[in-house]
Amino acid sequence: MKINGVKKITNHAHLNLFMVQYKDRADKDKEWIFASRSNPANSPDQGERSVDAVVIVPYHKNEEKLVLIKEFRVVLGDYQYGFPAGLVDKGESVEAAGKRELFEETGLTMTRIIRQSPAVFSSSGMTDESLCLMFAECEGTPSNEYNEASEDIEIIMVSRAMASEIIRDERIKFDVKTWIILNSFAAGGIL
Amino acid sequence: MKINGVKKITNHAHLNLFMVQYKDRADKDKEWIFASRSNPANSPDQGERSVDAVVIVPYHKNEEKLVLIKEFRVVLGDYQYGFPAGLVDKGESVEAAGKRELFEETGLTMTRIIRQSPAVFSSSGMTDESLCLMFAECEGTPSNEYNEASEDIEIIMVSRAMASEIIRDERIKFDVKTWIILNSFAAGGIL
Repeated sequence: MKINGVKKITNHAHLNLFMVQYKDRADKDKEWIFASRSNPANSPDQGERSVDAVVIVPYHKNEEKLVLIKEFRVVLGDYQYGFPAGLVDKGESVEAAGKRELFEETGLTMTRIIRQSPAVFSSSGMTDESLCLMFAECEGTPSNEYNEASEDIEIIMVSRAMASEIIRDERIKFDVKTWIILNSFAAGGIL
Repeated sequence: MKINGVKKITNHAHLNLFMVQYKDRADKDKEWIFASRSNPANSPDQGERSVDAVVIVPYHKNEEKLVLIKEFRVVLGDYQYGFPAGLVDKGESVEAAGKRELFEETGLTMTRIIRQSPAVFSSSGMTDESLCLMFAECEGTPSNEYNEASEDIEIIMVSRAMASEIIRDERIKFDVKTWIILNSFAAGGIL
């Protein structure tokens, strides 16, 4: 396989389509369209780019619960259960973005980062979106007074017993990462 | 929040951008752009659509190993470690798609579905892509003779010890679901 070039084919503010031209294993010219929040056409060495987003997996130590948010997702036209998350601002460290997003979305304070993933990819068939997963301990009282007007968020504190119930509830829409981690939490898995 | 409509704003074969018009909590008119493989503009009741893709988490029972694929991803311009996966064909059941993709990408035969997720979402800030996670047992000898020309795949059988090593290797690019499941597998978690 050989990449010959990447072209930007739309011109919107936050998300665009790009076309990659490449040769497949049979040396045939092919094209592949994907979506990106950044500008991969300007950075051919994609491996060096930093992460787009941080997803926090917050464990409230005193309550022994995972902290989820039930958030209205415009794209789904419905509420989704997921972890607090957000884009990393320009010049901001991943750690700072994780602490900021956790506080803005839940009012909780991050006290310790347990473990952090490298840049991993959301769905690399259709987007170059990369994220860092941050497993962290937190404390405080949940509050949504720091939400923006564009956010419609309810904070849900989940015990192991409750995790085991909600993953079986077919009415709930889950983010994939959240569903996997709740499964392992319900089964007694460690963070 | 209230969705007023969804418009298709590009016209490609496999992936397009769509614009949702909605009112936020402050009753202000807003727009949000997202990517989709299907046509959400034609199906306002998005909750009823079936899954786009199936991701198989294959456990080779005799070898006591998880089966990963190291696959060239055009979008990343690099190899990525992930699980066998693919789009569900029109009219095909999720189970059939899971068995077919596992065989095509690894040459292995699925013998038992251990657990299956409902439709969960990859990254609902930027796409409506939904998938089913299928934890399954498999048997046979890994082979890539059934790959298509567009696929460049190496099959990797991962023990718990190896899982614990590779998740620490910063040179490897991982799909996010794969990274999370390898972590739990390395820690002795159940499938």
